[in-house]
Amino acid sequence: MTFTLQQALIPVDQGYTTVDVRVVGDTITAISPSLEVVGTVVNCENKLLLPGFFNAHTHSPEMWQRGVIPPLPLELWLAELYDFAPLEVEKVYLSALGTAVETLLSGGTSVVDHLVLIPGQEIETIAATIQAYQAVGIRAFVAPLIWDQSLISGIPSGENQAENSIPGRSAQEILQMLEEAINKFHKPEAGVYILTAPTGIQLCSDELFVGCGELSDRYNLCRHSHLLETKAQQLLAQEKYGCSAVEHLNRIGYLSSRTSLAHCVHLTDDDIKILAETQSTVVHNPLSNLRLGSGIAPILKYRQAGVNVSFGCDGASSNDSQDLLEAIKIGSILHNVTDLDYQHWITPRQAVEMASLGGAKGLNLGEQLGSLTVGKKADLVLYDLTNLSLLPRTDPIGLLMLGRPTQVVDSVWVDGKRVVENGRVSTINVDDLKQELFAKSEWVTNRKSKTVSEFEAHYRSVMGLS
Amino acid sequence: MTFTLQQALIPVDQGYTTVDVRVVGDTITAISPSLEVVGTVVNCENKLLLPGFFNAHTHSPEMWQRGVIPPLPLELWLAELYDFAPLEVEKVYLSALGTAVETLLSGGTSVVDHLVLIPGQEIETIAATIQAYQAVGIRAFVAPLIWDQSLISGIPSGENQAENSIPGRSAQEILQMLEEAINKFHKPEAGVYILTAPTGIQLCSDELFVGCGELSDRYNLCRHSHLLETKAQQLLAQEKYGCSAVEHLNRIGYLSSRTSLAHCVHLTDDDIKILAETQSTVVHNPLSNLRLGSGIAPILKYRQAGVNVSFGCDGASSNDSQDLLEAIKIGSILHNVTDLDYQHWITPRQAVEMASLGGAKGLNLGEQLGSLTVGKKADLVLYDLTNLSLLPRTDPIGLLMLGRPTQVVDSVWVDGKRVVENGRVSTINVDDLKQELFAKSEWVTNRKSKTVSEFEAHYRSVMGLS
Repeated sequence: MTFTLQQALIPVDQGYTTVDVRVVGDTITAISPSLEVVGTVVNCENKLLLPGFFNAHTHSPEMWQRGVIPPLPLELWLAELYDFAPLEVEKVYLSALGTAVETLLSGGTSVVDHLVLIPGQEIETIAATIQAYQAVGIRAFVAPLIWDQSLISGIPSGENQAENSIPGRSAQEILQMLEEAINKFHKPEAGVYILTAPTGIQLCSDELFVGCGELSDRYNLCRHSHLLETKAQQLLAQEKYGCSAVEHLNRIGYLSSRTSLAHCVHLTDDDIKILAETQSTVVHNPLSNLRLGSGIAPILKYRQAGVNVSFGCDGASSNDSQDLLEAIKIGSILHNVTDLDYQHWITPRQAVEMASLGGAKGLNLGEQLGSLTVGKKADLVLYDLTNLSLLPRTDPIGLLMLGRPTQVVDSVWVDGKRVVENGRVSTINVDDLKQELFAKSEWVTNRKSKTVSEFEAHYRSVMGLS
Repeated sequence: MTFTLQQALIPVDQGYTTVDVRVVGDTITAISPSLEVVGTVVNCENKLLLPGFFNAHTHSPEMWQRGVIPPLPLELWLAELYDFAPLEVEKVYLSALGTAVETLLSGGTSVVDHLVLIPGQEIETIAATIQAYQAVGIRAFVAPLIWDQSLISGIPSGENQAENSIPGRSAQEILQMLEEAINKFHKPEAGVYILTAPTGIQLCSDELFVGCGELSDRYNLCRHSHLLETKAQQLLAQEKYGCSAVEHLNRIGYLSSRTSLAHCVHLTDDDIKILAETQSTVVHNPLSNLRLGSGIAPILKYRQAGVNVSFGCDGASSNDSQDLLEAIKIGSILHNVTDLDYQHWITPRQAVEMASLGGAKGLNLGEQLGSLTVGKKADLVLYDLTNLSLLPRTDPIGLLMLGRPTQVVDSVWVDGKRVVENGRVSTINVDDLKQELFAKSEWVTNRKSKTVSEFEAHYRSVMGLS
């Protein structure tokens, strides 16, 4: 497939210019003020062209519970989430479709799905999710979410506790499943990447982390994990290891330039130095961090220390959306209240770079993706600058990053293939998807989480809540 | 005009029920599981009916500069804003149309426009704005933004400073203009309300505040003002008055149950007590407070102290949008990081009440507006629950408040008149508006604010920035 984008507005230095862009196959082959037309012509008048963004951390099956979990901190929220997690592969397929559609229509061309697996149907869950992402045509980074300790062990006990293993789910069994998934599904040339992804220090043994590191080395995979999302996890790390979680993960070799870490809310300055030295990436999920009361990640400090930062929506029941533009906006402006000196604040152009090149670097693909550069893959998004939410005309990137753009994505290409056209996803029937999501759900008036009621008194006591 | 909404989902206690709603003229006259049809029938199947929300603080002409002011704190941002403020009445008309449309399409039926006036054309500015709001059909609270001291006096000097008056704009001249506007435009029965609205202690003399209080009493008007938006204003109040701004405003009699105060970021516990005692309302503008780095207003403390709180978008160049659902979402979840105890966090249902009844109370209209109650005015919004962003079905209000709903507003009635139908504004031609906004603007690549460069060194020095 060859096509020429004609007269697209693109950012240069401090301003903008209008260019033609040629794409041959999956690659950007030329960018110039005026190009001879080759292949299909796409008129880009009054449209802004940017590299596709990365939804660098989410959990697609959470879409089934968006809007319904009450205001709770992560540890209790998680208890409720797991009580009502979808257990049908077909549902997982549908929520992956929904996640992909919402990501594409808010500027994302890649999704990192830290995928919660249906117990006993782990491989089927992964297969269905990948099938959905391929149907929509989004670049898919699937990170099967694994852990080998019981949920209660993720809450500090107030005293050192023995690790709680789960009968029948040893680290070795889980790693075998993961290796099977890698062999079956990891196909970068087809836009499908498997990541190793233990959920985090709160529920994983060292054996699981080390095993994931070995698989990552053996198969050249990126590594993913949650890291220090909450105050409780910070306490827990001290209980478990007698040091910070970052020090521990560094000691056991999980941190690297291929490692991306979701949240990173409660890190010390020493921890930040370790992230910089190991070239790890922080994935910032601002909406989830607010919704769960986790805190404000020290993103300006990360940037000053040279740590790469990208953005994620996080799962749709801790956000409760998959609108990437919203996550980028809030993830940019939120930090202005943490530093009086506005010269450190994230500019709209810096936000674009974090969301695109930052995302690519965090997945070890900075050479192939994340910018409008000849030779890079054609993961492109075209924004309609005549939409009311982007008017009157001022600074296009400022409007996009700081405003609340709705329905502004005109076209999206992933790997050179067009997947959104005239504001509509062209690869699947979204009306059908809506009907299926509607039919397979019901309005919830009251539901009670058994696990929350079991955990709550202990949580309040450990966290010093009266 | 009489109509019957059939089978709308509405919230009751902890759950939902389906009802018919009858509207006669401007009033809700019956709500019941099943009503005899009177007048036009509106099918509300799979739709959620809520009272209209209040966009309780904005500045409509700022729409002309949205997306373009760089990351700056309020005092410098304001300098740039004023350097490039629109000076044509026609532009003010268009941005009021835009503000009304975006507010309606995000659940708002009322807008409080703290209206920046074109110097020398103050009455014309107000007239054009009201004309726009009446054309769209939104309930309009127009609060002409007045001040009588020069812009530089809004920045603390580091020492006590004399008040800087502006030649030719005495408090008395301004108050005369305001009284003329009141006599010309204040028509509550037509949905147009004038408020007294000195911009704030940073740029206003006591004479101006006291004069506004007198006009408010004489004409039974609500009162509005900015209050302690920034750290700099907190310093300035101590310089000017030797006490907090709240103490001072209370002493000169500006606080009352008809007074709504935008921002309220930097208040002490004693200040909060004064707001509670005077029954003043806080208008929370979370996005603007983040964007300008002003801080996080202590909203949970206000609620615990019994202070009424509503939500505003603030002007579109400090947000940079007029999406009320976004402001409500962020204004709800933002505070979860300020209090470890999740039992204090704002629930989605509480957010709805703040945005509707809270807004009405802040404008002394709690008896007439703000809830689905027989006898109240029919300011109603109907949300389409089959929109992808509200699927799968879970808790409708949770989805609406915590998600990122786009294009979900199906219908809006203000004062019993339908102004949005099938997701489209029916009173004006929005395509024409888009074309005019496009034609009257241009993409900005570089602009330099003269006043920012004049103020910046002084600001940095006073604020202790190296």
